[in-house]
Amino acid sequence: MTPAQHNPEERPLGALLAPDIIALLEESPALIAAETEEMHPADLADVAEAMPEAQVPVFLAALPKERAAQVLEYLDEELRAEVLEAMTAQQAAALVTEMNPDERADVLEELDEDVAEEIVEEMPAETRKETQQLRKYDPDSAGGLMTTEFVSVDADTTVEEALRLVRRIARSDKREAMHAIYTTDEDGRLAGVLSLRELLAAPEGATLADVAWTEPQAVSPTADREEVARVISNYDIVVVPVVSESGHVMGVITVDDVIDAIQEEQTEDVQKFGGMQALDEPYMQIGFLSMIKKRGGWLSILLISEMLTTTVMQHFEKQIDLVKALPLFIPLVMSSGGNSGSQATSLITRAMALREVELSDWWRVARRELPSGLTLGVLLGILGMTRIALWQWMFDHKMWLGYDYNPHWQLIALVVGLSLVGIVTFGSLAGSMLPFLLRRVGFDPASASAPLVATLVDFTGLSIYFLVALLLLHGVLL
Amino acid sequence: MTPAQHNPEERPLGALLAPDIIALLEESPALIAAETEEMHPADLADVAEAMPEAQVPVFLAALPKERAAQVLEYLDEELRAEVLEAMTAQQAAALVTEMNPDERADVLEELDEDVAEEIVEEMPAETRKETQQLRKYDPDSAGGLMTTEFVSVDADTTVEEALRLVRRIARSDKREAMHAIYTTDEDGRLAGVLSLRELLAAPEGATLADVAWTEPQAVSPTADREEVARVISNYDIVVVPVVSESGHVMGVITVDDVIDAIQEEQTEDVQKFGGMQALDEPYMQIGFLSMIKKRGGWLSILLISEMLTTTVMQHFEKQIDLVKALPLFIPLVMSSGGNSGSQATSLITRAMALREVELSDWWRVARRELPSGLTLGVLLGILGMTRIALWQWMFDHKMWLGYDYNPHWQLIALVVGLSLVGIVTFGSLAGSMLPFLLRRVGFDPASASAPLVATLVDFTGLSIYFLVALLLLHGVLL
Repeated sequence: MTPAQHNPEERPLGALLAPDIIALLEESPALIAAETEEMHPADLADVAEAMPEAQVPVFLAALPKERAAQVLEYLDEELRAEVLEAMTAQQAAALVTEMNPDERADVLEELDEDVAEEIVEEMPAETRKETQQLRKYDPDSAGGLMTTEFVSVDADTTVEEALRLVRRIARSDKREAMHAIYTTDEDGRLAGVLSLRELLAAPEGATLADVAWTEPQAVSPTADREEVARVISNYDIVVVPVVSESGHVMGVITVDDVIDAIQEEQTEDVQKFGGMQALDEPYMQIGFLSMIKKRGGWLSILLISEMLTTTVMQHFEKQIDLVKALPLFIPLVMSSGGNSGSQATSLITRAMALREVELSDWWRVARRELPSGLTLGVLLGILGMTRIALWQWMFDHKMWLGYDYNPHWQLIALVVGLSLVGIVTFGSLAGSMLPFLLRRVGFDPASASAPLVATLVDFTGLSIYFLVALLLLHGVLL
Repeated sequence: MTPAQHNPEERPLGALLAPDIIALLEESPALIAAETEEMHPADLADVAEAMPEAQVPVFLAALPKERAAQVLEYLDEELRAEVLEAMTAQQAAALVTEMNPDERADVLEELDEDVAEEIVEEMPAETRKETQQLRKYDPDSAGGLMTTEFVSVDADTTVEEALRLVRRIARSDKREAMHAIYTTDEDGRLAGVLSLRELLAAPEGATLADVAWTEPQAVSPTADREEVARVISNYDIVVVPVVSESGHVMGVITVDDVIDAIQEEQTEDVQKFGGMQALDEPYMQIGFLSMIKKRGGWLSILLISEMLTTTVMQHFEKQIDLVKALPLFIPLVMSSGGNSGSQATSLITRAMALREVELSDWWRVARRELPSGLTLGVLLGILGMTRIALWQWMFDHKMWLGYDYNPHWQLIALVVGLSLVGIVTFGSLAGSMLPFLLRRVGFDPASASAPLVATLVDFTGLSIYFLVALLLLHGVLL
């Protein structure tokens, strides 16, 4: 049989069988366990999501407890919370106890505080202690991401002994993958690391100290998920240990949790850059009021800031009245400032997120953006002037679309052209410096959104435009 | 010794030693290999990046060939290309041959086509064939990401035999990790998968067919990197096989390559959303002209599109002249449309990238955005009207900042308020539908940038504003 190939337009194989499994669940639930034995828990979770919500606990009960716990791990967060809250605390505790410690802590995080407490109370003592400890950490920190199931062995152990130990653990019911084996010194502190593969390759008779890598990469429990992702991706490792200040391994973070963390982080960054608070929930699931709150706040702030443009316009009321052609180009010159600012901001926030650029690089960045902004401004300025000359020419030749800007249309064109140079230069500089400024005062540089930059640049852009007009048209038209 | 903890403000441990290693390289290069034996190749690459470029080949030559190849894998792309191009084709081929096949293909991709060809010619026949095959695929596709080093075993093999085989491979000089072992049927097609851990846990006497998982996840060689990332992250696996149409395993993609792919993809998306072409190079390294090209193209297109706003303004020239207060609010109402559009676009492009939303969901999305847009519009409309009422009140009471909009200032306020409702609703709808439209006509929905949406909405927003003014002020002021 050809293996399941993934095609974005197709649901995974498991979901195709959902109706059969749901039917089987009604007719003979006793067969469910055996019939679904070969399915991946992620696919079983898809099946659970396709059935009526009331059926999900029945379905989970029909599976062996460890399988049910695995399915829970892949289940949609909201459904999972509802299913667990619908169970008795004992039932829920029995299921949740079978989960990996890190997943268990995450799941409890999503429940009502009271319900979570009740469930924790029903856990076996050891599990309870472990869970309470993990719940102390921010879920987005290394401590919150780590699982406490890992293999660590005294560095003096021989390769044969370690292999026997690893086989015993592999055959036990603990499910955490063991891609890496950590060695510890006489005080139990992290001393080295070797992969399962390296253990298999190790010569007989050697001790782990002979074959393990010393100075293993590690993170502190308070490191944020971006930092964890960077270590894992820089060193191409699949698991990184979380080490206390005293040097003891507290847990490990595996690469799958890091991928999820990267994806979430990126979703937040994209939404912030779009000019809103991060939703923290899938778009299709978030409630109407939460959505309005997350979007309305920034929209209102931006509107209020943008009111400055009205003040600028009021200030130049007389000039607008004297030179009818002036207001015509306001949207044009203003938007170019916002666009160039948006480009610069997206470049710099991303370069900061990837640590290509640090706070201290602001001057180097400014020195790159100044000539770039000037060049782009000249380019746009020429385009803008050409537009005016063209329409005037069409007017002079009585063609459709032609427009009479003024007897001094060349001057108007020059005002637009020079303003564009100034505005695009300012936009590029302001857009690139805003993330530095935000970071300097302690905000997330990713809050520098395209609309925020546009709003900041609009006010200045408008002022530049009118000042250039005052300078060039003084004595002629003004 | 306490292991190296990662702190974003600190350079990794290896880099601290860079000056020592550079000094040692000058004095006694023969000691380099032994002195750096325990260092991670990623840290050695940092050291290489800290030395004068001419020294790098000397440094690499001082390391054992396999170590030098590993360091090359972590080296900055541009430096790597320069170092390899400075060597003879034979020297370069000797180094590159030691790399993983997927990395080797990637490295050659970065070189001058002629230089790459010369190096390929100097490789041993088998390596050459393998490399040429990999280079046929798009570097961003599964075929381009995969490595051809993996372990596959006939499903009839016993667990003991397989373990012996795996140990032999682990002890050989091939370096690709072997997190998963694939089983094949009598025709050599992919039949199952098991992890190294599962192999260790398997009962003695069983065959692999008894213990392997059937229906393993797989991707086709033409799948794009987003798809590969999705499979790996959905199923929490560290490696996914690339399978031909006939069902044979062609290679495997490991999770570290996927993380890099996700990061690159995200950088591209952020830059596109900012309104430019993706740079494809780190911000600090891209040349001036490339930067101008990648930014200037979109800026020019946007400016030319924005010229439509000038046309709209020309059309309403008479009204602007009659009601002096009208132009004052143009930047305000226009920018609100762009801001709400930017929000909606960032939400939808991200939801599409995560496959939360498919092309067929456009109607469901529109039905969510319509009430959201209306509500946000009413919120902003009230704010806008309050602003006008407040300034007018301050004028009537002869206060600073006050402004006389008109004897009919209530009507002007109503024009601004109602326009904001219309423009924000339109902005939200247009911003959310644009990614669908782009995808429908075969473009990347991520090309729906904040500036593009703003530009599209500016033209419509301006028209809405003037039409509302015409309707409300007809017979009174116009």
